[in-house]
Amino acid sequence: MSKSTLKEAEKRTLPPPRTLGRHWLIELKDCAPGLLQDVPGVERIMRKAATVAEVHIVSGHFHQFSPYGVSGVLVIQESHLTIHTWPEYAYAAVDIFTCSPELRVREAIRQLQQDLEAGEVEVKMLERGRLE
Amino acid sequence: MSKSTLKEAEKRTLPPPRTLGRHWLIELKDCAPGLLQDVPGVERIMRKAATVAEVHIVSGHFHQFSPYGVSGVLVIQESHLTIHTWPEYAYAAVDIFTCSPELRVREAIRQLQQDLEAGEVEVKMLERGRLE
Repeated sequence: MSKSTLKEAEKRTLPPPRTLGRHWLIELKDCAPGLLQDVPGVERIMRKAATVAEVHIVSGHFHQFSPYGVSGVLVIQESHLTIHTWPEYAYAAVDIFTCSPELRVREAIRQLQQDLEAGEVEVKMLERGRLE
Repeated sequence: MSKSTLKEAEKRTLPPPRTLGRHWLIELKDCAPGLLQDVPGVERIMRKAATVAEVHIVSGHFHQFSPYGVSGVLVIQESHLTIHTWPEYAYAAVDIFTCSPELRVREAIRQLQQDLEAGEVEVKMLERGRLE
């Protein structure tokens, strides 16, 4: 059997992984409002979190809202990180969606809490792509 | 009382909205794999969904994985839409995060199901930024 035929046969017979991804939804409350206001600061914090998580950044895109507030995304090989900030409520919503179980996500969340000076952090983790 | 002083006083006394955003996590299974493979097709489908939802696109960024599969994001004024596809499993994970309750998200989800020919769709909606 040729190598490519064997590979096809294996694909058909091997079961898929249990889940394809993990999605961490992070609520950061009572942050320092000044840290949530502008793109340079928010982008720096998110890139640092990505470094701590040991993900591989493909591209980053951050948008400044007026008069303040930021929406940003880091597209990563392992899926994405996003952030939306509401400085007027001292709140930021962060998502970390990964398709690799080996990443240091918890450490990244701790880093975010520290860098945004969040007084309260809530974390939910949901499985994505749970296949039969 | 001057206008700016009044505005500050109002800010201090008005309660924040109940939640700042809604986050829809959408699992699309048994899709047509060919529709999940490439950036042009996936981007077109996502932009159509955004149009149906009546959101305002700020920017779009789609990445082609090799040999197939796409990760993409639409940064919108109301937050974001993301997609990650696994053509080999006929699966796509879509997120719609909005800070406006007036959007036609359900219609957008139906459009996605139709355009990706998904045999099965699971939807979760989570509140983000629920403030006391």
